[in-house]
Amino acid sequence: MNVQNVLKEKQKIINEHLSALLVSDSPSHHTLYQAMNYSLLAGGKRIRPTLFLLVLDMLGVNSSLYLDIACAIECIHTYSLIHDDLPCMDNDDYRRGRLTNHKVFGPAMATLAGDGLLTYAFELLTSGSQISPIKQSRLVYILAKAAGPSGMVGGQAQDIESENRKQTVEELKFMDSCKTGCMLTSPVDMASVLADCEKTEYDALHSFSVHLGLLFQITDDLLDATSSLETMGKKAGQDEKLDKSTYVSELGIDGARQMAEKEASAAVEALNIFGEKAWALQGLIPYILNRKK
Amino acid sequence: MNVQNVLKEKQKIINEHLSALLVSDSPSHHTLYQAMNYSLLAGGKRIRPTLFLLVLDMLGVNSSLYLDIACAIECIHTYSLIHDDLPCMDNDDYRRGRLTNHKVFGPAMATLAGDGLLTYAFELLTSGSQISPIKQSRLVYILAKAAGPSGMVGGQAQDIESENRKQTVEELKFMDSCKTGCMLTSPVDMASVLADCEKTEYDALHSFSVHLGLLFQITDDLLDATSSLETMGKKAGQDEKLDKSTYVSELGIDGARQMAEKEASAAVEALNIFGEKAWALQGLIPYILNRKK
Repeated sequence: MNVQNVLKEKQKIINEHLSALLVSDSPSHHTLYQAMNYSLLAGGKRIRPTLFLLVLDMLGVNSSLYLDIACAIECIHTYSLIHDDLPCMDNDDYRRGRLTNHKVFGPAMATLAGDGLLTYAFELLTSGSQISPIKQSRLVYILAKAAGPSGMVGGQAQDIESENRKQTVEELKFMDSCKTGCMLTSPVDMASVLADCEKTEYDALHSFSVHLGLLFQITDDLLDATSSLETMGKKAGQDEKLDKSTYVSELGIDGARQMAEKEASAAVEALNIFGEKAWALQGLIPYILNRKK
Repeated sequence: MNVQNVLKEKQKIINEHLSALLVSDSPSHHTLYQAMNYSLLAGGKRIRPTLFLLVLDMLGVNSSLYLDIACAIECIHTYSLIHDDLPCMDNDDYRRGRLTNHKVFGPAMATLAGDGLLTYAFELLTSGSQISPIKQSRLVYILAKAAGPSGMVGGQAQDIESENRKQTVEELKFMDSCKTGCMLTSPVDMASVLADCEKTEYDALHSFSVHLGLLFQITDDLLDATSSLETMGKKAGQDEKLDKSTYVSELGIDGARQMAEKEASAAVEALNIFGEKAWALQGLIPYILNRKK
């Protein structure tokens, strides 16, 4: 089986599970659930939950038992997109190839849809009975820490404050490790916890995910600089418009590409201790390096 | 010791613990932490965490061991106020007697401050070591369920959709049980879990909290109809302006007062099985019934 097919299969499993998840408990909450599902079921690459499932597979754990956890990760990611797109934030009209949440449901309902998805993720993490409480509690901590003020929300705040201000590559790296990185390392850490990894395995996987996160952000900057709305499903050229420091503005397109390739190699290397078992995770690396959206 | 003093003492303990909680881990996140602390440390009645601590005290549990949990509850409440006040929501300028978060930090940072507090609450619930994982996981579930799409966020969405539309008293009761009620029942349920309550005690306390929640909302409607910015620290008269159905619009001021008194009596009665031990919780009821803000 090649990697493209594995990724497609995982996307399909995740999409199916997501679509059965949020069912309104009352007619009075109908619009809220519609708004949450609108963004949650809008497609997207599902990289974060896929990463989580692929690590479990590699570690010999039956990943189909942990689809709720995979979906909780995607709920957090989707909430962050809804809030990022709000008029008071990036004010974007398109996301994943269709109108943003607030363009359809208005900014008040979109704010609540984001709040709802974020909160629901923690309900999901603690509602099953097949995960031991000690692991449930650990998963909540890892995900909350990654998504919270010292993680994703912190990076987002730094991003807002950095508009129209030069940042060094070191500052960018810190910002991105919070803004994008934490939500790529946390799915890997969560899988390691569920699989009862030994420290060397945990560390190797964590290192892989750190490099993958950085790779993801550099390719994001490259796409923003070189792609179009049609290809990406969201507006391109935003970084330059906002005069944001990015890997492209600081290193040039060629410099950013070189850095991306260096991170990709480091990610591959980190997986070496797993040998051939890591083939699917290895395959994810060129998929992100060469992505068009 | 009289109840007023107990409440003041609890407020003081909670405020002290809150003020030591959110310390920025990096200069790049400084503004975000400032924004979160601005609202978190703005005073307020601290009813929800106080309720949590009082139930623990009554059940003979050392409540000072669980201040992180009390603060997590207040973090969720504070986030909901920040987001409610946003320009795209109620667009309020004042809260707790001072400018709202977005008036000081802008709506983008205020949105992130809310997101940060909400997420941080779940980090807090799972970071201590004195609570067993099985209880930690249960606390996360109760609080996420109460604050999420079938709880507070759901009620908030219903509230937005009900502007300029008549709601029956039954619809109001359902909305309020989600919007306000869940965040008053959940602190009580969480304390019951920590104290290993038996079912009869758990049920009695839960029933008390349901009546208290309704009482709280009715007095909220009464205050909005009869108070002023100076007394409340936030704008009054908003419900009528938005043509919202409330207990006052549906039952009149006298009718709403009668309903409040009925709920207060029912709350008192629910505590009967605890006898004299319940004196502080009993005392909370007239405090809410007769509150001026």
